[in-house]
Amino acid sequence: MTAKKKTTIILFSGDYDKAMAAFIIANGAAAYDHEVTIFSTFWGLNAFRKDQHVPVKKGFLEKMFAKMMPRGADNMGLSNMNFAGMGPKMIKHVMKKHNAMPLPDLVEMAQEQGVKLVACTMTMDLLGLQKEELIDGLEYAGVAAYLADAEEGNVNLFI
Amino acid sequence: MTAKKKTTIILFSGDYDKAMAAFIIANGAAAYDHEVTIFSTFWGLNAFRKDQHVPVKKGFLEKMFAKMMPRGADNMGLSNMNFAGMGPKMIKHVMKKHNAMPLPDLVEMAQEQGVKLVACTMTMDLLGLQKEELIDGLEYAGVAAYLADAEEGNVNLFI
Amino acid sequence: MTAKKKTTIILFSGDYDKAMAAFIIANGAAAYDHEVTIFSTFWGLNAFRKDQHVPVKKGFLEKMFAKMMPRGADNMGLSNMNFAGMGPKMIKHVMKKHNAMPLPDLVEMAQEQGVKLVACTMTMDLLGLQKEELIDGLEYAGVAAYLADAEEGNVNLFI
Repeated sequence: MTAKKKTTIILFSGDYDKAMAAFIIANGAAAYDHEVTIFSTFWGLNAFRKDQHVPVKKGFLEKMFAKMMPRGADNMGLSNMNFAGMGPKMIKHVMKKHNAMPLPDLVEMAQEQGVKLVACTMTMDLLGLQKEELIDGLEYAGVAAYLADAEEGNVNLFI
Repeated sequence: MTAKKKTTIILFSGDYDKAMAAFIIANGAAAYDHEVTIFSTFWGLNAFRKDQHVPVKKGFLEKMFAKMMPRGADNMGLSNMNFAGMGPKMIKHVMKKHNAMPLPDLVEMAQEQGVKLVACTMTMDLLGLQKEELIDGLEYAGVAAYLADAEEGNVNLFI
Repeated sequence: MTAKKKTTIILFSGDYDKAMAAFIIANGAAAYDHEVTIFSTFWGLNAFRKDQHVPVKKGFLEKMFAKMMPRGADNMGLSNMNFAGMGPKMIKHVMKKHNAMPLPDLVEMAQEQGVKLVACTMTMDLLGLQKEELIDGLEYAGVAAYLADAEEGNVNLFI
């Protein structure tokens, strides 16, 4: 068998640390020549938001969601020991000290390595997120596309 | 190879949004003719509780668990932005607006599509949940049955 | 095919209940003759901490992390219904009543059954955890080693 190995990750979580884990595994797998997909759904979509405000038309609830959710990878909280935002600062501080890549750089590196980044269109619809609000270079698809990737996969994870 | 593809999901989480993701993937996989199993354990069992009180004999701690845990899919909280129950209301509101299926309907659809729903007997024992308190049409099994399904699986997820 | 089945679990979570699930699955898979690896990263490493204080040299932030994180499997909180520590007590109480194994015993059993326990060196570096602070019998590796195990795996989970 000469087919490439496949790693397919659902990024559901909107936590900084879990998204880091997802992108570290994805970048590792890409370096080992896997075909890698990150399918971002629900709160995981926040990792793909632009960090500046994008003026788009929205209903009231969609505006509230947009306001309450973190804008982009750099503004996400921790799954553990968040301490009202102190946790992420500490983590970023030790990461800098140890020369570890912050999340926005991990996302960029994934794109450079050809990791396929997919935004779940059902979630975008539900939370009222529009393409203009997300970073460039994403694909847009639903659960059928995820399954097509995952069913041939070697490493399938839900994060 | 003509065998059916297999999707096997452990539903550990008791969060409304994570259970939704599990059932959306399961229903998608069933539509693509996978053999699908949702093995529900720990807090994930709450998605299978009946929403009315069922009078059964229980010890003190088991009664406390029963009281503290949400009764059925419709009463579960969110993993994120729960805001003391406001989050689930908002999500249900946007879901209705976008004609997305609420969780109880997703569970019903899974049953209609032949998704195998398994309740973890070890957890039932631990939390004092009895068959009478759970919805109809479940199978009852332990980790050995899960492994037998998962080890032949194409898509294995822990949610 | 005569090769052994492989189960590879990433333990990311530092929750008592999620770690229990990871070790119950791992021990089950080992009993069914799988080759099993638990790759422990981020908060999951807390399950491998010794429960007594180990005097090692650390920087200020690393000391803070060490203080704030639970020391060992027995001191971890629940992912759900933690109630400031009351939840874990209740769970341990019902577990004792039902003769279920507490987490430290599950970890020991995994070691006896030959489950490979790996501590993520990147996380150790980041959180300032040193080998002296972790239980004996661990291997130390990074994401490359995880992928090498997982890409041949039958059951891959992220917990």
